[in-house]
Amino acid sequence: MVNDTNSEKPLIFVTNDDGIHAPGIRMLIDRMRKIGRVVVVAPDKPQSGTAHAITIHTPLRLKFLADEPGYEEYCCNGTPADCVKLGFKVVMKRHPDLLVSGINHGSNSSVSIIYSGTMAAVFEGAMAGVPSIGFSFDNYSPDAGMESCAPIVSKIVQNVLDKGLPEGVCLNVNIPDVPENRIKGIRICRQAEGTWQEDFDERLDPIGRKYYWLKGIFVKTGHGNDTDEWALENNYVAVVPVQFDFTSHEAMALLKSWETDA
Amino acid sequence: MVNDTNSEKPLIFVTNDDGIHAPGIRMLIDRMRKIGRVVVVAPDKPQSGTAHAITIHTPLRLKFLADEPGYEEYCCNGTPADCVKLGFKVVMKRHPDLLVSGINHGSNSSVSIIYSGTMAAVFEGAMAGVPSIGFSFDNYSPDAGMESCAPIVSKIVQNVLDKGLPEGVCLNVNIPDVPENRIKGIRICRQAEGTWQEDFDERLDPIGRKYYWLKGIFVKTGHGNDTDEWALENNYVAVVPVQFDFTSHEAMALLKSWETDA
Repeated sequence: MVNDTNSEKPLIFVTNDDGIHAPGIRMLIDRMRKIGRVVVVAPDKPQSGTAHAITIHTPLRLKFLADEPGYEEYCCNGTPADCVKLGFKVVMKRHPDLLVSGINHGSNSSVSIIYSGTMAAVFEGAMAGVPSIGFSFDNYSPDAGMESCAPIVSKIVQNVLDKGLPEGVCLNVNIPDVPENRIKGIRICRQAEGTWQEDFDERLDPIGRKYYWLKGIFVKTGHGNDTDEWALENNYVAVVPVQFDFTSHEAMALLKSWETDA
Repeated sequence: MVNDTNSEKPLIFVTNDDGIHAPGIRMLIDRMRKIGRVVVVAPDKPQSGTAHAITIHTPLRLKFLADEPGYEEYCCNGTPADCVKLGFKVVMKRHPDLLVSGINHGSNSSVSIIYSGTMAAVFEGAMAGVPSIGFSFDNYSPDAGMESCAPIVSKIVQNVLDKGLPEGVCLNVNIPDVPENRIKGIRICRQAEGTWQEDFDERLDPIGRKYYWLKGIFVKTGHGNDTDEWALENNYVAVVPVQFDFTSHEAMALLKSWETDA
């Protein structure tokens, strides 16, 4: 039984935001099954850009897909955050030893982390106290070859299983789109300053009413060789330790004078 | 014209996640119209729990609702983040002097910020370089009297218009549910440690298939009199300066030894 607490193999929870059929999650599942017992709960359809949305206005459905020795697979009609909550509470009825999310088709470096369903699942795991890692590949094409990711994923997962992560911290791992032999190594990075320069494509539907499609390109606005963007551009794997305390402790001191007593 | 760059009155963008018809946004609009020219783009229906989701798989629609001197109002079929993007790019074709989001029906203190569409709109404004404030009221009922919020909202908005905010920082303001004369003042706080203790209500639909509703209660896990939760419990207005750099700079040093060169 995959949930057997007496097993010596770690219990690993796998999810993503590109949906259960995406090549990225299939590769991640393959690698995780070599390391531990695996439970998968992933969205039944692509959920890119859902960020940390949770489903509270409509019911959630869970669909059983596979049960093999040391392996269970489900999909869900909700978001990545829903998948984690359902996985922990309904499917496993416990917390796993590790949560991995991805491999995302497209990078989640810099401010893209804010829109990312892949990383929302990772935050969800971290908030539950589970060591959690998001993996993203710097190529948006669903057909992109991800072979170079496999050894990196295994190495980082093993590091986290062996050493753990600091409390309240999870990992945002972005992998450059180059062959394995051109990857220069792993860099611990900070989130790069950057912005999505966006616009809307304005169109008319067949009865003449306007509608809009969001389109945008990412523009790096900061510099420095300690960022995730720098690492990707220079063929390093970018590992950003991220936290879910969003307080700007620096700004707290600056704004102290705003305090009033009634 | 509301968008007139020669006007001396500040141009204020208003949105929320409870939808254009929620009492909270109507109060916020009333207050902002006393201070500046106002453009509203808000979701056409409640979007609680959508976090920073953006709409990329379906087209967005914008509906014109009102145009009065110094005032324009629209609703949109998307998320709060969509509303901000559409507002800045399509409706205003410029950035406002201030973005305000809310007043949310229910607090967004502690980790609730992560699920909040109200605060996603605020992050979206801040990422575009616009001083941005989210207001939330510590009562989930749509019928809750929010009269006590009005002077607080005006005071904090005036502070931000006069003094600005540090770069990369926006404000998460939570207002306690007590009459105005019991509010003790304003406190600059950090995000409290806490967690949603959640579970799923498992039900059967009329043809016998299982479905799930998420339910949960918030549990404060940390202590200290410098948190937003402490402030609310003690009848202070909690102002948390938040940032969209999620890097744990502390953890970067701890994980430095993980770096490898290929």
